[in-house]
Amino acid sequence: MQTKHTLPLELGSRSYNILIGNDLFSGLDKALSSILTGRQVAVVSNTTVAPLYLDRLLSVLRRGGFSVLPIILEDGEEHKNWTTLQTIFNALIENRFERTSTLIALGGGVIGDMTGFAAASYLRGVPFIQIPTTLLAQVDASVGGKTGINHTLGKNLIGAFYQPRMVAIDLDTLKTLPRRELLAGLAEVIKYGIIWDADLFSLLEEKLDAILETDTTVLAEVIHRCCAIKADIVAADEREQGQRALLNLGHTFGHAIETLTRYETYLHGEAVAVGMIMAADLSQQMGLCDKADLTRISTLIERSGLPTKGPAFSADNYLSAMARDKKVEHGKIRYILVDGIGKSSIHSEVDVALIKSAINNNLQPKR
Amino acid sequence: MQTKHTLPLELGSRSYNILIGNDLFSGLDKALSSILTGRQVAVVSNTTVAPLYLDRLLSVLRRGGFSVLPIILEDGEEHKNWTTLQTIFNALIENRFERTSTLIALGGGVIGDMTGFAAASYLRGVPFIQIPTTLLAQVDASVGGKTGINHTLGKNLIGAFYQPRMVAIDLDTLKTLPRRELLAGLAEVIKYGIIWDADLFSLLEEKLDAILETDTTVLAEVIHRCCAIKADIVAADEREQGQRALLNLGHTFGHAIETLTRYETYLHGEAVAVGMIMAADLSQQMGLCDKADLTRISTLIERSGLPTKGPAFSADNYLSAMARDKKVEHGKIRYILVDGIGKSSIHSEVDVALIKSAINNNLQPKR
Repeated sequence: MQTKHTLPLELGSRSYNILIGNDLFSGLDKALSSILTGRQVAVVSNTTVAPLYLDRLLSVLRRGGFSVLPIILEDGEEHKNWTTLQTIFNALIENRFERTSTLIALGGGVIGDMTGFAAASYLRGVPFIQIPTTLLAQVDASVGGKTGINHTLGKNLIGAFYQPRMVAIDLDTLKTLPRRELLAGLAEVIKYGIIWDADLFSLLEEKLDAILETDTTVLAEVIHRCCAIKADIVAADEREQGQRALLNLGHTFGHAIETLTRYETYLHGEAVAVGMIMAADLSQQMGLCDKADLTRISTLIERSGLPTKGPAFSADNYLSAMARDKKVEHGKIRYILVDGIGKSSIHSEVDVALIKSAINNNLQPKR
Repeated sequence: MQTKHTLPLELGSRSYNILIGNDLFSGLDKALSSILTGRQVAVVSNTTVAPLYLDRLLSVLRRGGFSVLPIILEDGEEHKNWTTLQTIFNALIENRFERTSTLIALGGGVIGDMTGFAAASYLRGVPFIQIPTTLLAQVDASVGGKTGINHTLGKNLIGAFYQPRMVAIDLDTLKTLPRRELLAGLAEVIKYGIIWDADLFSLLEEKLDAILETDTTVLAEVIHRCCAIKADIVAADEREQGQRALLNLGHTFGHAIETLTRYETYLHGEAVAVGMIMAADLSQQMGLCDKADLTRISTLIERSGLPTKGPAFSADNYLSAMARDKKVEHGKIRYILVDGIGKSSIHSEVDVALIKSAINNNLQPKR
């Protein structure tokens, strides 16, 4: 990989680097050799990503002297469960993987989350490496150590905080990413601008067209800034006891949107896009930000081609779906609200009438 | 609980206390209130232990203002699997357990390991408390954060290093423990004397009869010393990258004994007892300890009423079972060897002929 940026995530003995570059994994063997003690690795990928990048990755790793076991899973969120995890465990056990053996996740968020949880749990923890191939995974899921699987009663209910030993982001992999998935990732990029970095938000307003054309130079800069923000937040609050929750802007409303539509209509990033508008609307009603901020947020989301309206369910339906979110504490939902572009805060006492109004202001018309 | 000893386990922000006392959990509500932020707890126990102690524990907790959900599992190692873990997860989700909700393990090692892994994985980690009710769990399994479940292809292959917030050892629970299980725990007690503490070993030689009569004063002292050793070792090497492996004395041979007899004949502690004699025999052959040390070890084990001979399989059968142990590193088995009573060390280069001889010297006669 031609590394353009190397970003440290400082977590004491569990610190690691986020590499951002291109040229399809070249040099990755050397980078891995410098941090791993074992030479046995498994590459976990799926039936969509493997045909595109697995051969290339295997040849780089094998040239570097690694013995590599590919584990190819079915693609899709519906496979993010214990049964698929067992497929990984069985392969590791049958191939006598040891505590120094390493798992490499090659794919999007689902692959990263499952591979991470498998690595966290196999022999009580083996090293793992993230090679995220979607924009969403590159700026969000691959960094920070949240891993897990879904439970029939809810998403990501079972998992671990478990940090990778390295995150290697190769921008070349974005060139094959379907546009809808690129946009879903862009929603999380916009989130970083809103909660933390007004300059990033302005950069997005200015360079949106280049991003939508997957201009590698602009994307390298944007992804670098997002990862730097996430690295700072995670380093300060690894287990989400405080400000890490800011990263959930739009996610509580978004979770309700995904639940109400049974995860069939909105991609995660699309639901978060609408959720961020609802959160900004709520913030503006509460006087935390200006009408102009709300307008800039909804305008950027709309210009990106992301949805701006939620499905036409009643506000009460939204509220009860939100109450089932795993971020609920002492029975209370915590809202991430916008204190102007680039600033955000956590609130647990919010007037329900205003929440309902924020929802109702941003719904599709009833059919 | 009338606390006789409070022992800190120092692990930075994950430090916790091991309380040793009696009087069946009295005062435990106050001890818990001081360390937990939530008031919602689940007590995980099994069909053997629950009838003995659950009511008493529930009444103490409820008097302390906790809302308590009992989760009663089938008893037995064969239930230490994902299916049972699902039972726990379902109960937690249905009762809307949150990140501040707490799991309490009331039982032996199987309950502690499963509850710990459930706590490690539910919502990526909720607090948990160990209330071990067997000697084995009190001196070994409950302290140090090893949690997990079995896989059809091997024991404890899936799990996490996840520390409890407190370990509460109530000696009164030993009074109902079947003698065979008391002895199985005693094997691990003897292990601490061999690997770390010559004075403890002498104390055991002297007070063996009192221990076998479950004399609470002697047991309090003995358990305190074992937990202190374990706390020191774990504090220095939480994830078993170095000297924590000393705690595995006798376990590699023992693991082979359990595997060869399909876990049907020997309790874990019984297999470890024989394994420690094999390890000491090997150590003596290698000149690491004297014949007199080996004799003291086998004599104490024999006086306790623990087995001293392994099942009559060939040494090659033992070796291939040992090669499947999860402690294997770079294809090599690491042997914990005895450098005299109270001292031990880790070896990975050991003459196979001597290993076979140590096995063959300590087998039951062929039938």
